Amino acid sequence: MSSKKLINAADSCVDEALCGLVRASGGLSLLKGHRVVLQSDLEKLKGKVALLSGGGSGHEPAHGGYVGAGMLSAAVAGGVFASPPPASILAAILSLHNAGASGVLVIVKNYTGDRLNFGLAAEQARNHGVAVDMVIVAEDCAFDQPSKAGRRGLCGTVFIHKLAGALAEEGRPLDQIVSKVTEVLKGIGTLGVSLSPCSVPGCLPSFELPPGDMELGLGIHGEPGIKRSKVIQIEPLPTMIDHMTNPNSQSHLPVKSGDNVVVCVNNLGALSCLEMAVVTRAAFMCLEGRGVVVARVMSGSFMTSLEMAGVSLSLMKADQETLRLFDAKTSAPAWPNLSSVCVSGRSYMTVPRAASTRPQDEQHSEGPLSPVMRKALERICSTLSEKQEELNSLDRASGDGDCGNTHAQAARTIQEWLRDHVVPGCPGKLLSVLAGLVQEKMGGSSGALYSLFLTAAAGHVTKGWSNAAAWASAMHAGTQAMKRYGGAEPGDRTMVREAFDYIPLNLFVVFFASLQKAALGAESTRNLTAKAGRASYIAAERVTLPDPGAVAVAAIFRAVLESLEGQK
Amino acid sequence: MSSKKLINAADSCVDEALCGLVRASGGLSLLKGHRVVLQSDLEKLKGKVALLSGGGSGHEPAHGGYVGAGMLSAAVAGGVFASPPPASILAAILSLHNAGASGVLVIVKNYTGDRLNFGLAAEQARNHGVAVDMVIVAEDCAFDQPSKAGRRGLCGTVFIHKLAGALAEEGRPLDQIVSKVTEVLKGIGTLGVSLSPCSVPGCLPSFELPPGDMELGLGIHGEPGIKRSKVIQIEPLPTMIDHMTNPNSQSHLPVKSGDNVVVCVNNLGALSCLEMAVVTRAAFMCLEGRGVVVARVMSGSFMTSLEMAGVSLSLMKADQETLRLFDAKTSAPAWPNLSSVCVSGRSYMTVPRAASTRPQDEQHSEGPLSPVMRKALERICSTLSEKQEELNSLDRASGDGDCGNTHAQAARTIQEWLRDHVVPGCPGKLLSVLAGLVQEKMGGSSGALYSLFLTAAAGHVTKGWSNAAAWASAMHAGTQAMKRYGGAEPGDRTMVREAFDYIPLNLFVVFFASLQKAALGAESTRNLTAKAGRASYIAAERVTLPDPGAVAVAAIFRAVLESLEGQK
Repeated sequence: MSSKKLINAADSCVDEALCGLVRASGGLSLLKGHRVVLQSDLEKLKGKVALLSGGGSGHEPAHGGYVGAGMLSAAVAGGVFASPPPASILAAILSLHNAGASGVLVIVKNYTGDRLNFGLAAEQARNHGVAVDMVIVAEDCAFDQPSKAGRRGLCGTVFIHKLAGALAEEGRPLDQIVSKVTEVLKGIGTLGVSLSPCSVPGCLPSFELPPGDMELGLGIHGEPGIKRSKVIQIEPLPTMIDHMTNPNSQSHLPVKSGDNVVVCVNNLGALSCLEMAVVTRAAFMCLEGRGVVVARVMSGSFMTSLEMAGVSLSLMKADQETLRLFDAKTSAPAWPNLSSVCVSGRSYMTVPRAASTRPQDEQHSEGPLSPVMRKALERICSTLSEKQEELNSLDRASGDGDCGNTHAQAARTIQEWLRDHVVPGCPGKLLSVLAGLVQEKMGGSSGALYSLFLTAAAGHVTKGWSNAAAWASAMHAGTQAMKRYGGAEPGDRTMVREAFDYIPLNLFVVFFASLQKAALGAESTRNLTAKAGRASYIAAERVTLPDPGAVAVAAIFRAVLESLEGQK
Repeated sequence: MSSKKLINAADSCVDEALCGLVRASGGLSLLKGHRVVLQSDLEKLKGKVALLSGGGSGHEPAHGGYVGAGMLSAAVAGGVFASPPPASILAAILSLHNAGASGVLVIVKNYTGDRLNFGLAAEQARNHGVAVDMVIVAEDCAFDQPSKAGRRGLCGTVFIHKLAGALAEEGRPLDQIVSKVTEVLKGIGTLGVSLSPCSVPGCLPSFELPPGDMELGLGIHGEPGIKRSKVIQIEPLPTMIDHMTNPNSQSHLPVKSGDNVVVCVNNLGALSCLEMAVVTRAAFMCLEGRGVVVARVMSGSFMTSLEMAGVSLSLMKADQETLRLFDAKTSAPAWPNLSSVCVSGRSYMTVPRAASTRPQDEQHSEGPLSPVMRKALERICSTLSEKQEELNSLDRASGDGDCGNTHAQAARTIQEWLRDHVVPGCPGKLLSVLAGLVQEKMGGSSGALYSLFLTAAAGHVTKGWSNAAAWASAMHAGTQAMKRYGGAEPGDRTMVREAFDYIPLNLFVVFFASLQKAALGAESTRNLTAKAGRASYIAAERVTLPDPGAVAVAAIFRAVLESLEGQK
């Protein structure tokens, strides 16, 4: 059975993909009757050298994605992994010539079919009076002794598209462009590694790779590489760079300490972006470890092999002129949004300023009602500890059964804090301290919700032992924050209780009413469908007991109330 | 066993990936001690609103890739699929505040953990005197009746990053930005489909999907979707858009004929770029079929789910102001190189000009030696037909055994042409005609090589029955073209023979010497290792017979020679 793919049919996918690319990109057009992507503003080519590339499909975004001002003028696509017909290549060259291009440079990856077909079209174009030249990219570093078919053309080709495109955009003549890229080509090398094969639409995978194995040095059509080994959870970057720069290999890249390089980390198709970033870091860490200066890094999907889960690494030795051309602007849709800052040596770590503490926060002076608050806190803690098993038991019906444990943990944390600290005279400060303790030691959604309530409330009771109106505002703010960020509304079966939805004018009224509502709420949750929080993930019919979070909140309010009543 | 991945270790991959992203992007920095990506030029925030987003890792390039001028000012990362801790979020907010930002807008995807943790940090920041507000993105269109936890936040979040970023860059105040994006959010919807699960590093896949099945409407952490069905080789775009716009669903997007939309086709991780382009085309074809105007399309990896092989479609209703903000420049590394041309209605087809034919090519007037050339051609054709089985047999030893067939096919094609056409008086024209016939009807590498030879030679014998020197140049040019594009050098076992490497001064010497060399070559190939062409892919010890292509070339030369000798 062929691999499943999101396509309509194997025989239409190339044309549909080209249409998708071109229609999505304002600067591109299709040459009618051919699989040719053209710059849509061909008139801008007048008097300049035009650049043409192409090859089999299945390597998207190559090559159509590189068409645009500052890169290619045209790209010719064949079927999946098949070279395009010379008639389409010729039609593309003639379109560029007819638009007034002073010459056409054909850039080809080193595969026999592409050399022959693009070569034939180039010769035909020459007979039509077109000034045409060809550059063949063959930068594969896989084989110590390349076969006479030569080193394969891989992702390094994209470097040539970019540099030649920048030169053409500047108006340089054909021979100068050829001479510059021919020189640059000597300093480009590529090596790939893959965890999986790929499969041409409608076909079986191109090869088999046992689970846990990876293959080094394979081609972009799944051609065999140089060796297989186990994926040992250490990325193969050092091995790859050793191999690429090994002077005993005829196809090595002579990169040495002190050289400047541009790095391209290319997703062969199906590697996750997370892995891509890990591999990218490994690439420049490894190069820098060898004394190489990493001048630029591009990381993404540039020359893919369908859905192959692998990566290739391309290196290009770069002087200032090469970097200038690499950095030049282009409108090609597949070119990434790169910065032109040298990677090696850049400072990339920002040190956070110490959080600004406001003067009134710095001292924990006791206030007149600190003993009251200490008593209330102690009562809350002992109550929560007593209710540990009751809350766990309620939670087992709808959650993971640890609601009592987390509340008891919070209680212990606060008890320990009370042993070693004075209770701040400013209640806002006290609430902030409690918010921090609960967030750090209680954890989970409950910790976050309590901490949210306390943090939002704290800002409203910052002036001494604040009055009842301030406490009412604080309660309201805390409630609103829990509702907003917790995402629950009254009637939902969560810790965010209707209890908090009432704004009283007097501190005792606040707490009393809240308590009544909280107690009521705890009972009323019995028949509510849990709509928010974890309990919403289990079937409604299983939930018949009150919500343990609501029971805990009710217990807290009762404890506060009892403490305050004891003070009267 | 957990899935194989190119990472060092599950517990270091997030930090390594952040380092890879930041170091590769000149405009980014890391906040020391936190998983926070910051704009490196924080001083540019002075007096402007700063934007902060973030969430679990595994969704790369979200969110760090969207940090840059014109998009986010900071992104906070959690572990893979885990919300980041409030302390890091607060540290990020305070860094922006301390840099002089007039306010901080926090943009959060609608997941309970993110709401709570970002909410808590926001409330803490408010207590530090920071003007902070939060926008929660919840644009999932999967469920007809969303649970109270609400619609999930998916790839549509990237639209909000972009629009809010453009407004902030313009210097708009916090309340205006919140009000604009809150309005825009009502017109954003997303739906995903996947062919595979994904797996958190070090863990098993998040769910099972039988071969051949796809799942519609799933979340970016692999949360269950709305239905499973067979992949039936017809992309699910029409179904997806029907579902997203179905007015019977509470989470539908009210898009109707005449509306302008921006489309984001998002690779969930491992879909091939070829499929992505096919799906992109299907998306705007389907929308246009419903009368919707597709104003912009972005297609790529924007909000991934590790290596999930799937795609999500996000739509955003857009007026001119929204498009202006969408088109604004940004330096964020993950933002693609988009054009600002409306997709729908744009003419994207270029009609090729008819190939310019030169005046002398237009008439096939017979020349004085046309009968000689006709005779030579007839002799070549009959010789190749006679040798069909001999060539096939030689080819079976090293190729696919059809060398005789392809040559016989070429012979028949030329014979048919000879029956219906006069032989052009200009030999250059004759060679061009033959090149075209051979290219079209013979096919394969042989056809391309013969065609290359004939095409390159044709340009040198354009003046009547050209002299011997012209023919010598033609032979040389043809040989050089074959060698250059065929990639073979003398000594390689291919059709490109040493025979062609000799430049004689007299036509008969050319042909005779070539013939001798070709005959010699055919014999000498017996012991050469085939180094170029298809034969290079099989083991050397199997190749002991002469190359069938060389035998064919020798036969052709012998036929020409015999014809010419008969004329003397």
